[in-house]
Amino acid sequence: MANENVWTRKHLIGIEELSREEVEMVLDTAPQFLAVQDRESGIKKVPLLQGRLIANLFMEPSTRTRISFELAAKRLSADTLTFSASSSSTKKGETLHDTLANIEAMKTDLVVIRSPFAGAPALLTESHTSNIINAGDGYHEHPTQALLDTFTMRQHIRKLREDDTATLDGVRVALIGDISHSRVARSNIWALKKLGASIILCAPETLIPMNIQKMGVEVTSNLKEAMTDADVVYALRIQMERQASSLFPSLREYIRLFRVDNESLKHAPDNALIMHPGPINRDIELASDVADCNRSLVLEQVSNGVAIRMAVMHLLANSAQPTDQE
Amino acid sequence: MANENVWTRKHLIGIEELSREEVEMVLDTAPQFLAVQDRESGIKKVPLLQGRLIANLFMEPSTRTRISFELAAKRLSADTLTFSASSSSTKKGETLHDTLANIEAMKTDLVVIRSPFAGAPALLTESHTSNIINAGDGYHEHPTQALLDTFTMRQHIRKLREDDTATLDGVRVALIGDISHSRVARSNIWALKKLGASIILCAPETLIPMNIQKMGVEVTSNLKEAMTDADVVYALRIQMERQASSLFPSLREYIRLFRVDNESLKHAPDNALIMHPGPINRDIELASDVADCNRSLVLEQVSNGVAIRMAVMHLLANSAQPTDQE
Amino acid sequence: MANENVWTRKHLIGIEELSREEVEMVLDTAPQFLAVQDRESGIKKVPLLQGRLIANLFMEPSTRTRISFELAAKRLSADTLTFSASSSSTKKGETLHDTLANIEAMKTDLVVIRSPFAGAPALLTESHTSNIINAGDGYHEHPTQALLDTFTMRQHIRKLREDDTATLDGVRVALIGDISHSRVARSNIWALKKLGASIILCAPETLIPMNIQKMGVEVTSNLKEAMTDADVVYALRIQMERQASSLFPSLREYIRLFRVDNESLKHAPDNALIMHPGPINRDIELASDVADCNRSLVLEQVSNGVAIRMAVMHLLANSAQPTDQE
Repeated sequence: MANENVWTRKHLIGIEELSREEVEMVLDTAPQFLAVQDRESGIKKVPLLQGRLIANLFMEPSTRTRISFELAAKRLSADTLTFSASSSSTKKGETLHDTLANIEAMKTDLVVIRSPFAGAPALLTESHTSNIINAGDGYHEHPTQALLDTFTMRQHIRKLREDDTATLDGVRVALIGDISHSRVARSNIWALKKLGASIILCAPETLIPMNIQKMGVEVTSNLKEAMTDADVVYALRIQMERQASSLFPSLREYIRLFRVDNESLKHAPDNALIMHPGPINRDIELASDVADCNRSLVLEQVSNGVAIRMAVMHLLANSAQPTDQE
Repeated sequence: MANENVWTRKHLIGIEELSREEVEMVLDTAPQFLAVQDRESGIKKVPLLQGRLIANLFMEPSTRTRISFELAAKRLSADTLTFSASSSSTKKGETLHDTLANIEAMKTDLVVIRSPFAGAPALLTESHTSNIINAGDGYHEHPTQALLDTFTMRQHIRKLREDDTATLDGVRVALIGDISHSRVARSNIWALKKLGASIILCAPETLIPMNIQKMGVEVTSNLKEAMTDADVVYALRIQMERQASSLFPSLREYIRLFRVDNESLKHAPDNALIMHPGPINRDIELASDVADCNRSLVLEQVSNGVAIRMAVMHLLANSAQPTDQE
Repeated sequence: MANENVWTRKHLIGIEELSREEVEMVLDTAPQFLAVQDRESGIKKVPLLQGRLIANLFMEPSTRTRISFELAAKRLSADTLTFSASSSSTKKGETLHDTLANIEAMKTDLVVIRSPFAGAPALLTESHTSNIINAGDGYHEHPTQALLDTFTMRQHIRKLREDDTATLDGVRVALIGDISHSRVARSNIWALKKLGASIILCAPETLIPMNIQKMGVEVTSNLKEAMTDADVVYALRIQMERQASSLFPSLREYIRLFRVDNESLKHAPDNALIMHPGPINRDIELASDVADCNRSLVLEQVSNGVAIRMAVMHLLANSAQPTDQE
């Protein structure tokens, strides 16, 4: 278990600003919470945030992520308030500021924010006193997703190698799908780079950001090439509404060239792990039988997600915070 | 109180598959929970499901039933998650399967499911590990409604007869309304038959299912005949939207021929009990003054509903389950 | 702290029927709850309503007020149920009666009601057994708002005068905005009059109720006059939808004549306190920089709101109630 006293951040806004040690500290804190929720038929809670108030402020709809954070809060014995605002009613940063000011006036301890606007959570840390967790901001970052993903990868790499101390150093991850519009991809690239993994991105050229190679990743539009030697094959969710744009090939074309299925997986190692952030468009970016096969970690990602969020909440709210650095 | 050790089922999908002993075991377990919620000004909770997680998955809107289950969970000290999905987003059984798989990945102990599709909860028991309670599936069953209804009947028959051990054997129940499209009717017929009651169904011929007599019930379209000798007069809720179909008479005609009111009740015994599953269309299927009279058990059904659901949750979650039988 | 044994009311419907002593009893009970929620990083809860059930029945949308009541209930360790009904589905008082009857059948201890119909909460006290708190009924009253407002005023008057026992006697309050359609104004007028404050209302003539002077207030349409000598400048929220009616001047005209801003505040004393019930239409009825200045109590009103609601819930639910008087 991590030496929790070393944690000094007040907020979790992005993976970009974390050190490798900080990423690993979260990953090392999660197993104790995984154990809490796996208790067979006892009390799946700990009193670490008893009587504290956690507000979930979701300016974009997202049942799964919201529920995961709510459940993490409850398993830490915190009380929760949930605000689901349509983004239309909060077009102005000023109004979001007002909303948060009002929430804080009710003496919240920690606020989880999802916003359609990149940078909104970071901006809010400047003028508010609660611990803030970014639950996804525009195309910027979704840090808890990357933490739960790298935790899940490390867990299974350790299992495959029968080595409880194995790291992601040198592990090869193929990230497949719409990289340009994915905060999940962006946060995972940051986390994987910090943890020493090697990354290959695979997508139609129109969906790969300019100059992304500067982040130290390989890029290809050839799925076969991406699959070769991949320890982890990570399919991103296709946003169906993007098909309308000229950036996106036809669905039939996307499936033919980029779907993770038993056919394309022939090019990957036999024990390559399959991941997806969910919810899956079955048989679009990921074949249904692959999603349900025993190499698929999709549901473990969900389970680990609650434990990772418990770890983050605990570290932010219960650690010594000598300075107000973000 | 029942010997709870005898309970062996993992799920509650329908009344049809229960034995008389099992039905009575639920009915005998409820009074202790009724006592909990009647505590005058103390703690209306027991810690029987402390720290467990109960998910409410409602694919059809139903504030009352959902609230009743949520409250039952809270009074057992469980934590709850509620998912209200529009049925449109879950047209495919596959997607409902995915939704439940994701919920279970968060380590739920018990899942309450309402679905517009008959058979959906039963199907889900085949591939999932949580305890599952059917909160209404299409025209199939609504088992907790029948349990709370028969509990309420038995309670009042015992009071009327001043006999704390009286059963429903030989008690005559008139079920009035749209039998064809009512899971409430179907579950009540199963429960009443198992408990030895005699049943007469009363509805326009177009709203009585073919071959229903095979279930061992009498059928009539004559309200006067149905009322005669009835110990319990149970009016079903009219689904207003069915008037559009040719199955349904005009509202005026329905009221004239099938409404439970002081006029039609002249044909019933003076102490006949009045029941309705709620919410009532006042002065349509049930006259307003009858709904509010002192023979009406409508609000007691609501009170008993929470206690029955606590009993079911407790039996499913806390009993020994040697085998995985449904 | 108040002698809580003196509290004898079962419901809180309006300020009008309270005595000065009762208003002050609530105000004197609030500080202990303010202390609970200000605990730096401990348990922000007390077990005063442990295991009790509080239902929030909101027939009008109001996220802020609803959240404030929910949080007050949670900080008292009560369980909560929330019903958000559209007013369209409850046009008939009868239906609201049915809704409440069903809620009470689930053994609620206390019900918080917001209704678009003036008088609805009072009507419900006649036939129901729960403690009832009016959270706003039409243009009638919003008593907890007036209690939190007068509490906030008294708190700051005491601070300014460095006198912990200072009262609102002789304090001058300018209430600015649409008085006619404001239950906030009505409840505040009652509370301020009972506490000995002097009140001046300021609005376009069309938005001032006939004969309002009978309540013992001054009236003006001259903002400069209203500001002069005001200890508190209280801006009401403009309901934007009222601009359509002929009662309302153009927005530009309203801003020019009635906006509380640094220009108009030149006529008020330098230390006049600024208040608003929220949410603010920034730069319409209240200038943005004034809302955020250090004389503005807007966010303290929000904080105090939770404590006041805890105080009211505690007094209603835990006090001796020898008679059923409202």
